Order: sequence, then structure tokens, then C-alpha cells
Amino acid sequence: MSRPIFDTVAILGLGLIGSSLAHGLRDKGLASRVVGYDASEDVRGRAKALGFCDEIAATPEAAVATADLVILSMPVGAAGAAAKAIAGALKPGVVVTDVGGVKAAVIAKVEAALPEDIAFVPGHPIAGTEHSGPEAGFGSLFEGRWAILTPSERTTDEALQQVSDLWHGLGSDVEIMTPEHHDLVLATTSHLPHLIAFNIVGTAADMEEVTRSEVIKFSAGGFRDFTRIAASDPVMWRDIFLNNKEAVLEMLGRFSEDLAALQRMIRWEDGDALQDLFTRTRAIRRGIIEAGQETEAPDFGRRGAGDTGGPKSDS
Amino acid sequence: MSRPIFDTVAILGLGLIGSSLAHGLRDKGLASRVVGYDASEDVRGRAKALGFCDEIAATPEAAVATADLVILSMPVGAAGAAAKAIAGALKPGVVVTDVGGVKAAVIAKVEAALPEDIAFVPGHPIAGTEHSGPEAGFGSLFEGRWAILTPSERTTDEALQQVSDLWHGLGSDVEIMTPEHHDLVLATTSHLPHLIAFNIVGTAADMEEVTRSEVIKFSAGGFRDFTRIAASDPVMWRDIFLNNKEAVLEMLGRFSEDLAALQRMIRWEDGDALQDLFTRTRAIRRGIIEAGQETEAPDFGRRGAGDTGGPKSDS
Repeated sequence: MSRPIFDTVAILGLGLIGSSLAHGLRDKGLASRVVGYDASEDVRGRAKALGFCDEIAATPEAAVATADLVILSMPVGAAGAAAKAIAGALKPGVVVTDVGGVKAAVIAKVEAALPEDIAFVPGHPIAGTEHSGPEAGFGSLFEGRWAILTPSERTTDEALQQVSDLWHGLGSDVEIMTPEHHDLVLATTSHLPHLIAFNIVGTAADMEEVTRSEVIKFSAGGFRDFTRIAASDPVMWRDIFLNNKEAVLEMLGRFSEDLAALQRMIRWEDGDALQDLFTRTRAIRRGIIEAGQETEAPDFGRRGAGDTGGPKSDS
Repeated sequence: MSRPIFDTVAILGLGLIGSSLAHGLRDKGLASRVVGYDASEDVRGRAKALGFCDEIAATPEAAVATADLVILSMPVGAAGAAAKAIAGALKPGVVVTDVGGVKAAVIAKVEAALPEDIAFVPGHPIAGTEHSGPEAGFGSLFEGRWAILTPSERTTDEALQQVSDLWHGLGSDVEIMTPEHHDLVLATTSHLPHLIAFNIVGTAADMEEVTRSEVIKFSAGGFRDFTRIAASDPVMWRDIFLNNKEAVLEMLGRFSEDLAALQRMIRWEDGDALQDLFTRTRAIRRGIIEAGQETEAPDFGRRGAGDTGGPKSDS
């Protein structure tokens, strides 16, 4: 157990990330008390039953009233309104942070709503699963992952240090960068991959000659890998694309140019160029495995066929 | 142990699939004797040392001379030449089958080379991992997966039944369809996903503002899911795209149309349309899990950070 970094922590938004934070803070002794709130009454009820918070508050104002740290953990499109709702109820000296997948747009909206003397530490853990809701959370989600902090003019050195300590306590490594650079990096490593996955799963679902049941049956040929991230929370992703529009459209433009070149290689049967590209892409995965961000086990180490057979990770 | 279905089986091509077949046939007692051959002397030496065949032959002719079943297990671009090489050395009554990811083009090339009285059963197991070479094989690779057989005019009922029994013995379910339908289905569920994965990994590798080290570091945001299939064997995939060109270009056209529509939704901030699409794609994954072709465990059940932490499959 670590020493608590904050006394009372309020978590607003109790989905996968919010509930995982609550589990992690308590498992690792990083907060003396965790108060939760979610805009959905149904989610509040489920979170209460699951018991991963010390208290589930009935309103955002009540949740933050005694908090030393407030974590905004809702879809990025809702962060501005949440900041507005709690602005008048915050304790002096409180630190506010967030976990949103877009930073520049969120900083603008949150800081417009918060009093000027409140320290805000914009943050984003690069962690998650395709499951959502308060049942999906688990305390080890952030272990061995990166948390990116993107200080703004409202970020004090002291608050930055405390939030950084919190992520270290949850098992993450911390990287500091500008909000704009974050938004470009994540457009590449997260937003574009999700966009493409949503698109290809949509394309396959619409095929009329190939029935949907065939797509499902023969998905082990590669398609099923895309369905994992295309099963991520729809509202969260809608908000990310709307709030990081410029960087996503820029990356999408590059992707489409490259795809046109690849299409041409196939049409003109340029085997050497195809093989060169496919050899180059292989090296990238090796780098991710060496950086400890991916498993080396074949097929992600997953078991096939409803866990009754299929590839074993030790083969 | 099953009763052997074939006495002597020759496997030509000892990569992931060929070596997995050798393991599986011996593990499950489906053949009395397995003879292996690979065009690469280096691979033949490694296969000999690994010992998963009863004998490693020095030439394709020697490998097939006593075989009751010959399995062509090389990249599809090499299948025609292999059939030509063995045509004069085959025993009367032998059955020839293959495991290629493209069927119409392979059938044309193989049947042009084989004597007319030889039974050919075109086949394709929908199984694999991103690893390649004789070290990558394991006998349970085909368990709980589909094997597709696409009979041609040269496929006898008896040979079709025997090859079907062999795949059942390896733990697979068997589906029969035309070569043309196979090539369209696989263009959707396998070839297009691989093409897109190769492309997005290539696009990300070429970014100059976002360094390659950042792409690797923050890949857990979604990008790393694509790198698995983009790490598949370059020669095998070059040959698949060149031999299933028409279906792949057709599917790529549909994908690009859909992507243009999605790009427009982002540019015009049509949040409802985005959310609708993302909700629809979520349902597809559910179907794949219910069909036993995917694990329900979050994050593929993989462990993060070099297996020292990260998401657990039981959370």
C-alpha cells in the first residue's frame, strides 16, 4: 500500500475508466476516500451495488464538495458542462484533472467554466478495453501503460506533481507534452485506428453477397481483430472525433493517399513494392513488443472457439 | 487417437501452416507417416532438427513418391510450379489438396499442371497466427476453426470426403462452397482487413511530426491491434493480393466509399450518424463471440507490459 496522495477524490463519470480509477485508488491506497458520481441514475445505482466507491453522490456538486482531487471521467463532449456544474461547489485548493482522449478542445471548454484560481491538470491514460460501464473496471488497467499529462496555463507545478504521483501509484509511466502534440500523436495511434476499424466493420456488415453470418463465421481470417476496437463505447468515440476533427481529418487524408498507392500496386501487380511494404510493417510490431506495450504470444495469446481450443499462448 | 485417414502424407511447404499440419496429424494419429519438404534448404534443416516430420525429403519428387495425400502448403504464387514439379512423381490414386488463401487462381494453375486423373481437393483453413516459419507451428492451430473446401471438376466425392474427415480430425468444422464465393468471402473477412492493417501501419511509420518511438510508446490506444496482422508473412500476402486482385479491388472500392462518407460525417460534425455507425459495429463483435470465433475477455485477454501486469482476462 502507498501513502494516500489525496485525502478525498471525487470521480465524475463511472464508466470503464472511472470505475477502474476507483478500484485502483482503493486497491493501492492512493486516496483515503473515493466519492463517485455519474450523470446516469442507472449507472449510479449499479456503481452503488458494485461498491467500488465509499460513497455515490446524488449530484455532481455534492460529489465534489469535500474533494481534494476531482477527476473528470466522462466522454469529452460532456466535460465542459460538468466543469460548469461543479464550478461553484469546489473547495479552495482543490486540484481538477481529466482523462479525456482529446486535450486542446477539452482544456478550452473546462477552463472557460472553472474559476481562474483552480488548478487544472489535463491528462489522458493510454489504457482501456473494448468493454464499457461500471462493471468493466478493474484496478490494474493502468499498470505498465502510459499516462500523458498536457499542462496548460492553469496547471501549477505542485498539482502537476501530485497528479503525476497518482499515475505512478496506479502503475503507469508518465509523459508530459503539449496538448496540441498529444492530439496529433493520439490521432495517429488511437483515433485513426478506431475510425478505420469502425469503417471496415461497417463495410463488411453491409455486404449483401457475403451474408453477415459468413462474415462472423470466417472472421478468424483477420476481420475479428478489427472488431475489438470497433466495439468501444459509441458516445465516447463520437465525442473524440468531433473534438479532434482537424488532426483526425489530416491523418485520414494521409491514410487515404497511402491506400490509393497500395491499390495501384495491386492493380498493376507490383509484387516487389507490396512485399517491401509488408516487410516494413512487420518491424513496427517487434518495436511495440520490445517496448512492453504488447504481448509476443501468437494471436494476442487469446484462446479460440469459446476457450475450448484454438491457439495457445505457449505454443 | 483417431484411426489414420491416410497412410503416408506429404506436406510441401513447412511454414506456420505446414508445420502445424505435421504436428496435428501426428498428435491426433491421422496419418501413419508424415514426409515434409520445403523449397528452402534452411527451412528443411530447421524442420529436420525440430523433428515434427518422420522424414524431410530433399526434393519435392522424393517427398510425394510414396504419398497417399499431398498437401500443397506454400504461398499461393508458388503452388502452380510445385504442382508441375511433382506431376510426374505422384502415385496412382493419390489425393492432392492445398491450403491456399485464394482458390480460383490456384485451382487454375494447379490443375493445369497435374495429370487429369489425379483428384484435387482445393481447401483453405481459416486459422493462423502472425508468426511464420517451421518453429511457429502447433498441432491445435485448427481446433474450433473453419476449413473451407471448394470442389472443382477434378474433385472426386471420395477424395472430398477423405479430406473433409482429415479436417474434422484436426478439430475443424468444414464448409463447402464454390471457389468464386470463397474468394469473395475471404476478400471481406481476411484480405481487406490485412490490406488495411498493412496500410495503416505503413502510414503511421511514415509520420515525421510523430516519431516512430511515440507511435510505439502510445500504441495501446488502438494502433497495436492492427500491427498483429500487419506482421504476417510478407510473401504469402503479396501472393494473395496478386491472385485475388479483382475481389480485393472490389472490396477496397466499397471500403473507400464508406470511408469518404465517414470523413464527411466528421467534417460536418454529424454526431448522430457517427453514434449510429459505432453502435452498429459493436453488435458484430457480439456475434463473433457467440459463434465461438473470438474470446469475450477484454483486450483479447492479453496481458500488457511484457506480461508483468495490465488487463487480466478474468477482470
